[in-house]
Amino acid sequence: MKIGFIGLGNMGSAMAANLLTAGHEVTVYNRSPDKVTALTARGAVPAASVADACHGDVVVTMLSNDAAVEAVTFGDSGILAHLPAGAVHVSSSTVSVALADRLTAAHAGAGQGFVAAPVFGRPEAAAAAKLFVVAAGAPATVETVSPIFDAIGQRTFVLGEEPRAANLVKISGNFLIASVIESLGEAMALVGKAGVDKQQYLELLTSTLFDAPVYRTYGGLLAREEFSPAGFAAPLGLKDVKLALSAGEELQVPLPVASLLRDRFLTLLATGGDELDWSAVGALSAWEAGGKPPA
Amino acid sequence: MKIGFIGLGNMGSAMAANLLTAGHEVTVYNRSPDKVTALTARGAVPAASVADACHGDVVVTMLSNDAAVEAVTFGDSGILAHLPAGAVHVSSSTVSVALADRLTAAHAGAGQGFVAAPVFGRPEAAAAAKLFVVAAGAPATVETVSPIFDAIGQRTFVLGEEPRAANLVKISGNFLIASVIESLGEAMALVGKAGVDKQQYLELLTSTLFDAPVYRTYGGLLAREEFSPAGFAAPLGLKDVKLALSAGEELQVPLPVASLLRDRFLTLLATGGDELDWSAVGALSAWEAGGKPPA
Amino acid sequence: MKIGFIGLGNMGSAMAANLLTAGHEVTVYNRSPDKVTALTARGAVPAASVADACHGDVVVTMLSNDAAVEAVTFGDSGILAHLPAGAVHVSSSTVSVALADRLTAAHAGAGQGFVAAPVFGRPEAAAAAKLFVVAAGAPATVETVSPIFDAIGQRTFVLGEEPRAANLVKISGNFLIASVIESLGEAMALVGKAGVDKQQYLELLTSTLFDAPVYRTYGGLLAREEFSPAGFAAPLGLKDVKLALSAGEELQVPLPVASLLRDRFLTLLATGGDELDWSAVGALSAWEAGGKPPA
Amino acid sequence: MKIGFIGLGNMGSAMAANLLTAGHEVTVYNRSPDKVTALTARGAVPAASVADACHGDVVVTMLSNDAAVEAVTFGDSGILAHLPAGAVHVSSSTVSVALADRLTAAHAGAGQGFVAAPVFGRPEAAAAAKLFVVAAGAPATVETVSPIFDAIGQRTFVLGEEPRAANLVKISGNFLIASVIESLGEAMALVGKAGVDKQQYLELLTSTLFDAPVYRTYGGLLAREEFSPAGFAAPLGLKDVKLALSAGEELQVPLPVASLLRDRFLTLLATGGDELDWSAVGALSAWEAGGKPPA
Repeated sequence: MKIGFIGLGNMGSAMAANLLTAGHEVTVYNRSPDKVTALTARGAVPAASVADACHGDVVVTMLSNDAAVEAVTFGDSGILAHLPAGAVHVSSSTVSVALADRLTAAHAGAGQGFVAAPVFGRPEAAAAAKLFVVAAGAPATVETVSPIFDAIGQRTFVLGEEPRAANLVKISGNFLIASVIESLGEAMALVGKAGVDKQQYLELLTSTLFDAPVYRTYGGLLAREEFSPAGFAAPLGLKDVKLALSAGEELQVPLPVASLLRDRFLTLLATGGDELDWSAVGALSAWEAGGKPPA
Repeated sequence: MKIGFIGLGNMGSAMAANLLTAGHEVTVYNRSPDKVTALTARGAVPAASVADACHGDVVVTMLSNDAAVEAVTFGDSGILAHLPAGAVHVSSSTVSVALADRLTAAHAGAGQGFVAAPVFGRPEAAAAAKLFVVAAGAPATVETVSPIFDAIGQRTFVLGEEPRAANLVKISGNFLIASVIESLGEAMALVGKAGVDKQQYLELLTSTLFDAPVYRTYGGLLAREEFSPAGFAAPLGLKDVKLALSAGEELQVPLPVASLLRDRFLTLLATGGDELDWSAVGALSAWEAGGKPPA
Repeated sequence: MKIGFIGLGNMGSAMAANLLTAGHEVTVYNRSPDKVTALTARGAVPAASVADACHGDVVVTMLSNDAAVEAVTFGDSGILAHLPAGAVHVSSSTVSVALADRLTAAHAGAGQGFVAAPVFGRPEAAAAAKLFVVAAGAPATVETVSPIFDAIGQRTFVLGEEPRAANLVKISGNFLIASVIESLGEAMALVGKAGVDKQQYLELLTSTLFDAPVYRTYGGLLAREEFSPAGFAAPLGLKDVKLALSAGEELQVPLPVASLLRDRFLTLLATGGDELDWSAVGALSAWEAGGKPPA
Repeated sequence: MKIGFIGLGNMGSAMAANLLTAGHEVTVYNRSPDKVTALTARGAVPAASVADACHGDVVVTMLSNDAAVEAVTFGDSGILAHLPAGAVHVSSSTVSVALADRLTAAHAGAGQGFVAAPVFGRPEAAAAAKLFVVAAGAPATVETVSPIFDAIGQRTFVLGEEPRAANLVKISGNFLIASVIESLGEAMALVGKAGVDKQQYLELLTSTLFDAPVYRTYGGLLAREEFSPAGFAAPLGLKDVKLALSAGEELQVPLPVASLLRDRFLTLLATGGDELDWSAVGALSAWEAGGKPPA
């Protein structure tokens, strides 16, 4: 397929590279152009503008928040104005349900397709084409763009016709990961202060009821107190928890653990942890228990 | 080995049965004698009193709380007074760190061995001899009683010489399970209110980052709203969260998620859920979001 | 003074009436015109549009949220476009710190004065000209408009040159009131379930350490379970708690009690309490403790 | 009256002195005898033992927790064994509802009277005989001992026949004070980080809706960051919050603000604040927001 790809951060670069590997024709665009070179070396065509990335069958956006997606979508030089009728915008960014609704309506109005397809997985998984893709949109449109999902992920879950559902599930999934970080952090602060070895504790957990990637990954970071460099930085964690809270407000669903996480992330950011991995919120419990602040 | 077994609830009956299966000589005692019959039919010897169950090499206790363990251990007719010097008390109940310390000192004073060996697993796992055993105590003593662990579980983790460590790890593990119930309950309330199918959502979670028994078991109960009959009743869940909070108080470790869970369990009990499975606390979020109370 | 007054809800109508009583020339505007009649009967001049209310020395806005203030301020038919240079916009609405900053900059750019002057007090206090006014802005401008504050309130607190400070203090004050509602609600659920008479309990509190209007007012509503009709409706309470949380996010200040309140208000709204007084959040504790839902 | 007084801490010494001032015959006992001298200088008779303090019409206990009250009440050398039939035990300590019930039953069984009479007020108020007394017990017995309350307090509230009600109200009152500390601490962290002067902010609050002693006292401590020496030390604050939580557990009433406070106090104690005034928990918010820890 002819694919435009906008947003070449840790995740986006890896995803675009895998699209090239799979044989797609990929035009890449990034606000700061330094990320473009590595991909052109692998065969990508550089785009000078967002509009330049909109000449294919599909344009994929993988950006850090609502504002960034809005900036490349709306306005005279945006996707909406330049994508041909019948072409498809695949939004893989973790954005709000409200923005998903707005994009759905706008692209429908412009005769363009729209699929929400956020992904689960850290940069390592993106590099290995092992992401999990959660897609939602008109079935025929999802079908059309599915080769993209095959190229970047290990499995795709199709959630129905409303794009917002995919974003909500992604948001809720990140909330669940953050919940694991918080509860593991509390548990490790407790057993750690009593002298139990954290690595042995983690091995016990992950050999039994908690035998899941999320416990191994985040438990390992917590046990080793390895928060830098950030695979997923704390401010992004706060953003995602706020997306969950906003979705909860719109749907009138109270989310007390998400509320706690919001306060945790604010504490982390206010006390110097803004460049740490988001797993560092799990180290705040040990700090409150008399240990050191996360670093 | 000659083993006395005290406490024949859902868990204890299954564990005693597996000790018989493994060829041990088992004398069983239960406060209400009706649970004894099924085991004598399988070859167990009935004991008329706690003292009667203390004539072997080991006595295992599997009871519901601190008070029950204290009642069979201390006093003129208790284990401490009747267990021979050199024999071992294996405490598999989920009890407080404070009681673990008290038992450790008391048995040492009486020349008896003491091993804390709480287990992870619901009644189905106990029946299948698939429990995970977390053991701590003097190494030689733990070694002596290890055939018991082999008979009831799929794997044993030995945590060191201080029995309290095993109890703390068990307590923290149950706290982590309850945390999963709460956070899954919040996530399901959120996506469910938006119309996402809960079973499909759970399949997505457990096929990806949350591919662990605890998510499958409790997520399934929540998705099916299947809280009765209770595999592990809500009052026991509250008891365990309180054990975590008490341990946190002793060690001066704040545990905000455990605090939330305490309040959740109180709400569940106060609103008629005292006979439901503890996973019903995860359904309180959907109730607060305008749905039905758990039943 | 010649004053335009925009926003004739419970609060605004009473404030405008007191401006008339104090001898000011008042032009009034409201989106739905039925509120206008009562004031024209007392001597107010009806305005057919926002622009019509902008011909005097000052225009006061008293509206329910950010969106309403933005709607009357910005755009071709807004205050900014029609207020003469040198005239002053007094914003008494409870709005976000972010909007306060935006209004400050916009009016400065248009050569107009801007004073943030939110008020404390329920409709009864507004009717009695007993409000407390919290004002901030350029000192000379605040001085100019101070006769307005004298007419509507019993006391004015001037907080400095930055309008945002007044809004932040107002937001924090409403948060403190909501905190009193929540904590009183918990305490009353506790003593009430033990059979202590809530009115006697409240008398004890307000005769001793808690001898303050806020405890008498909200404690009385809680003790009498008198949540309808709403003096200040639950959705406005949620709005204000969210303003506190947003301010906390901007300033990186975690606010756990505000987080709890957010979830409480969502529960109240999701379970049918959207037309109740905001004090009804204090009745959720008794519901969770097995009592009736607030009504 | 002939009064025995047991427990001469900051509060008890002041109360006993006021009993002497009011003309009562007072025998005083304290575990560490150094506190006794100051009172014997004012006319008190020193008691060599608890039993020695039990020869009058009434014995008052003012001790720091359940264990201390149990220690002087039960056992061969305790109040229960030595107080004459018909004499009255007035318990002014802040103790659990469970202990109140136990004392009620024990004294009834021994033919002795029992009145729970906890007090509100810090040491300054005790010294000035300005305490508020919350009393409950058999009406005739309460009547008999009321001269004691007149001597130590400014007002007595009689709550009915069940002593436990007085203890529950005292516990709930201390919870409400702690709630004020927490919420004020959050609000001050918020406005303070924006540059608002905390003293001016407090004056605004206490001149308006929050015109109550509790806001002036604790707001002043927080605004001045004056946490040492402790008028009421942090560990006592934790004790009282735990009493509220225990009462809530017994009555099945969830108390989320109390849960938050529990975690706050644990953080304060674990990070070196165990000798600070309990109001220092209100300074944790500013610390989390990037400021200094309380000291």
